[in-house]
Amino acid sequence: MARGFGRVFSGVKRLVTLSVMWSMKHPIYSVSLRRPPARSMAGFSLPFSKPHDFSLPNPAWSPEMLQLYNHYNGMCDVETEGGEKKEGKWVRIPGYNRILKYATGGVYISKMIQSKARLFTRNIREPGAGFEYALFVNRKEQKCVGIWQLGHLLEGPPGHVHGGAIATTIDTVTGCLASLSGAVMTANLNINYRSPIQLGSTVVMESVVDKKEGRKTFVSCKVTSPDGTKLHTEATALFLSIDISQLILGR
Amino acid sequence: MARGFGRVFSGVKRLVTLSVMWSMKHPIYSVSLRRPPARSMAGFSLPFSKPHDFSLPNPAWSPEMLQLYNHYNGMCDVETEGGEKKEGKWVRIPGYNRILKYATGGVYISKMIQSKARLFTRNIREPGAGFEYALFVNRKEQKCVGIWQLGHLLEGPPGHVHGGAIATTIDTVTGCLASLSGAVMTANLNINYRSPIQLGSTVVMESVVDKKEGRKTFVSCKVTSPDGTKLHTEATALFLSIDISQLILGR
Repeated sequence: MARGFGRVFSGVKRLVTLSVMWSMKHPIYSVSLRRPPARSMAGFSLPFSKPHDFSLPNPAWSPEMLQLYNHYNGMCDVETEGGEKKEGKWVRIPGYNRILKYATGGVYISKMIQSKARLFTRNIREPGAGFEYALFVNRKEQKCVGIWQLGHLLEGPPGHVHGGAIATTIDTVTGCLASLSGAVMTANLNINYRSPIQLGSTVVMESVVDKKEGRKTFVSCKVTSPDGTKLHTEATALFLSIDISQLILGR
Repeated sequence: MARGFGRVFSGVKRLVTLSVMWSMKHPIYSVSLRRPPARSMAGFSLPFSKPHDFSLPNPAWSPEMLQLYNHYNGMCDVETEGGEKKEGKWVRIPGYNRILKYATGGVYISKMIQSKARLFTRNIREPGAGFEYALFVNRKEQKCVGIWQLGHLLEGPPGHVHGGAIATTIDTVTGCLASLSGAVMTANLNINYRSPIQLGSTVVMESVVDKKEGRKTFVSCKVTSPDGTKLHTEATALFLSIDISQLILGR
């Protein structure tokens, strides 16, 4: 039993060494543009070497969503005509539908890869039906912007987005920002719903780090219409830094 | 144009007259056990006269979930051997996958029926993969209990339920309670996450009305393990009474 546990822990340790590439609160949101290795630690190829990045435009995106995407993407890293890379102020965060898709090695981790679990915000296959979104971060200014198109399967009040779906988007954007410096867990979400969001709408979420105190990161977030004139929701969030092994091994 | 708008408003008015049968925050949660009419106001039959109630047990429910269901269901209305109805303290709230499934009449409402919109908490077809839940209310004590089984498509941190999915369950349970006396909208959710919930777990949510002030209803909620020994989440919620036409017509 103890030996088995050692193997589990060994797997977790390997995962921790890869933690720069995954945020542990939102491990899918790599802040590095490097591609994770397509081979496991044991040396065999994994079947998911070319993951689908769901945060790229698709035909279900509205013109507003595309416009916002192009606006923020235009401020990210670009390749010049000469093939050189020019660093932008913002970085687009790729979005996958699995938390530990790229985890390699370790008995426990392998089990998780085999599981059918999917990220809550990416669990609907039909493009445009659920959450469509892309996240952009600005490390220097400690900001994260999320552009979201909220589909017809997210209904709460008639014709409008469910309060829980809005909470989900806020947890995602603020969590992405808080996890830039390591693994975090949500400790508090305080959300004020100002005006309902119609199903199918595109909204912008701007979040900023208010302060850091030891393990705590305080983040605030505003949800507005694309042109910023209508305030839909305001929120604050508190995240706690965690040790990933604590979470996975339940310590 | 004005005439068309009049027809829309007429439809909304008809809906309002039916509002006793639907909560407008969570219109699917009828607190009446009467079945809504299967014919529209225009006299033709609607295709969904026998809706599927998703809050009844299915093979994907865990033994814990079934035990909880039987516990609370046993305190609801029962039919005695003589065929008489004996009133229980609690009422089970049927759960459908559409907000305005039973709305009848009115141009605007008909359009909404035809739409592909689905309730956020019932948008996954595979039993056990998303949210499995049943809600029970006790009108006299102003309480609502939700029993939830949280499936593998609700992942946030590795192997655990997404903070947004937990927020969704809280909005649902507290909203169901607040809407017992009429249509409401969520104004605030303040959620403290105490300990993570493993994917696939069954949890119990107990909510109670703390106070009412004019249009405001203040509700609190606790999320625990089925035996009540582990506190996962605590929350407060504020709901505002609304006029449904205000929401649908955007006034």
